[in-house]
Amino acid sequence: MNTDVTVLGLGPMGSALAGAFVAAGHRTTVWNRTPGKAEPLVRQGAREAGSAGEALAASPLTVVSLSTYEAVREVLHPAACGLAGRTLVNLTSGPPVCAREMDAWAGRAGAAYLDGVVMTTPSGIGSRDFLQLYAGSAAAFERHRETLTALGDATYVGADTALSSVYDTTLLCQMWSTLTGWLHSVVLIGADGPGGNVTATEYTEVANRWMDTVRSFMNTYAPQVDSGEYPSGDFPLDLHRSTMRILAHACELRGADTGMPELFSTLTERAIAAGHGGDSYARLVEFVRREGRPEATLS
Amino acid sequence: MNTDVTVLGLGPMGSALAGAFVAAGHRTTVWNRTPGKAEPLVRQGAREAGSAGEALAASPLTVVSLSTYEAVREVLHPAACGLAGRTLVNLTSGPPVCAREMDAWAGRAGAAYLDGVVMTTPSGIGSRDFLQLYAGSAAAFERHRETLTALGDATYVGADTALSSVYDTTLLCQMWSTLTGWLHSVVLIGADGPGGNVTATEYTEVANRWMDTVRSFMNTYAPQVDSGEYPSGDFPLDLHRSTMRILAHACELRGADTGMPELFSTLTERAIAAGHGGDSYARLVEFVRREGRPEATLS
Ligand SMILES: NC(=O)c1ccc[n+]([C@@H]2O[C@H](COP(=O)([O-])OP(=O)(O)OC[C@H]3O[C@@H](n4cnc5c(N)ncnc54)[C@H](OP(=O)(O)O)[C@@H]3O)[C@@H](O)[C@H]2O)c1
Ligand SMILES: NC(=O)c1ccc[n+]([C@@H]2O[C@H](COP(=O)([O-])OP(=O)(O)OC[C@H]3O[C@@H](n4cnc5c(N)ncnc54)[C@H](OP(=O)(O)O)[C@@H]3O)[C@@H](O)[C@H]2O)c1
Repeated sequence: MNTDVTVLGLGPMGSALAGAFVAAGHRTTVWNRTPGKAEPLVRQGAREAGSAGEALAASPLTVVSLSTYEAVREVLHPAACGLAGRTLVNLTSGPPVCAREMDAWAGRAGAAYLDGVVMTTPSGIGSRDFLQLYAGSAAAFERHRETLTALGDATYVGADTALSSVYDTTLLCQMWSTLTGWLHSVVLIGADGPGGNVTATEYTEVANRWMDTVRSFMNTYAPQVDSGEYPSGDFPLDLHRSTMRILAHACELRGADTGMPELFSTLTERAIAAGHGGDSYARLVEFVRREGRPEATLS
Repeated sequence: MNTDVTVLGLGPMGSALAGAFVAAGHRTTVWNRTPGKAEPLVRQGAREAGSAGEALAASPLTVVSLSTYEAVREVLHPAACGLAGRTLVNLTSGPPVCAREMDAWAGRAGAAYLDGVVMTTPSGIGSRDFLQLYAGSAAAFERHRETLTALGDATYVGADTALSSVYDTTLLCQMWSTLTGWLHSVVLIGADGPGGNVTATEYTEVANRWMDTVRSFMNTYAPQVDSGEYPSGDFPLDLHRSTMRILAHACELRGADTGMPELFSTLTERAIAAGHGGDSYARLVEFVRREGRPEATLS
């Protein structure tokens, strides 16, 4: 099924999105506020619409990629009457609350709405190696999943449209933690200076294999967090603590910043002091939440 | 080729190692200071030696798993004369300097030496999903690689015997960073409390796919660290900084500890202040090393 698709906004991201739809063989209509940006896409086979309203009318599915939600409102509100029965996929970045407002507005205009995030830069668009997350109407996602797959690894994360940007922030947190750990590791292994015997490339080859093990820990710990029970098998927090002390010492010796190991150690010490030394690492989730803070609500 | 193998030390780890050799069909000789611990292994087909010297004499390859290097010296020194021409693989945990000392001592006794670390607990022994790292004689590793594969994913990391424990500490740093990031992510996504709409299990399914992208960043950044050049493509530190601000805000809102995001942000701000806002994330490696510290040397 080769759905027609419209792309509103031809910044670096919108242009990459439209290019990927064209490359996948979709009849693609594009529009940008400032004229001229459509030219390279038109050469590849896209059609340029004269107005946002005309662009929306051209396809059952419209993907929006503007700089802010304010720009999205500015562009879409005047065209509201043409939205009934169509699907809007908004890939503009913004806070969770804006996604919910846009969802309500699109509902009133009779459109199905998906709020999405693109977990890559424009150069990664079109590759299945990169995630795109969509939240909102499950029916709209199913209807257009195949078309959206032209952009990357299309993944549905839930009905609440706030979820896409919450996932975005959360996955970036996961990324920076891992990459910052990697930077520390590179310094610890001695790859960052002329004194190093191991290159960062050599270390990273081993780290790649090790990350499979780390992933298996995440997979073991996730249901523990969900159930609130933290059996440790043969790897309790007490054992983590004793090896963390070796890490702190190694950071000192090798001149690596100690902020990161101190962060793990402090969490672990607090959990052990509270009597959880025999539990798994996942117990620490209770110590990452600040005491006295309200329960989580998406906002 | 089904090499005979000896295991010295039958704590939880040594027993798991010996069990994996027996299961893989190797003629396995075991010894433990305190008698009685060999019994379950003997029932599976292992042979118990009456002394450490007798155990060493039984096989060309001996794997040592005792509590400390001091214990290793206590057991091996009296048996030094029986070591010529044999291979010692020491899987006892200890600091890099001890590995080098043991290497020199084994060399004088005429033995080939490998210092190893087991990147799992006893329950993971025998599974190819877990790394075992070996440093020291490359020839000895090649000779016994197949036998060692009975224990897990046997990986050679270099000739300097200090490297196995340096890798150990470094990979654990990588693990804790990733897992601590995961804990923060679980709090951010709202899975840690009754208010959560997303379970930790649901989040972790998406995170698993995302980790492939994170891995591809590590693979891109490693040669940058090795060359000292940090081209950013379309993902420069300036862009990281603006999304990090969203994360800091999200942690505040959701009551997650802010120590971790502050750590990335501080590093990033320092690099940008030093004029590196257009560089890739890998540039931060220069800011993880503390200023005024000596260049890295393995110790
Ligand atoms: N670039 C990335 O690496 C990346 C990665 C992930 C997500 N994103 C997100 O993707 C979205 C698009 O990003 P981008 O990099 O393509 O560039 P951008 O500068 O964020 O967006 C530029 C687009 O927005 C349009 N625009 C801005 N204000 C407008 C208004 N009031 N009315 C109509 N159009 C307006 C611009 O039109 P004119 O040409 O007329 O100015 C242009 O088409 C953003 O939300 C961004 O956060 C980007
Ligand atoms: N368990 C894990 O999860 C794990 C994971 C990775 C690495 N490791 C490392 O693997 C090694 C073994 O660990 P483990 O868990 O099996 O238990 P352990 O308590 O660290 O080691 C116990 C073994 O050491 C022997 N031993 C201690 N002092 C001795 C001495 N002076 N002379 C002779 N034998 C002596 C004990 O003999 P007796 O029975 O006679 O006391 C026993 O066989 C350690 O270096 C540990 O750090 C363990």
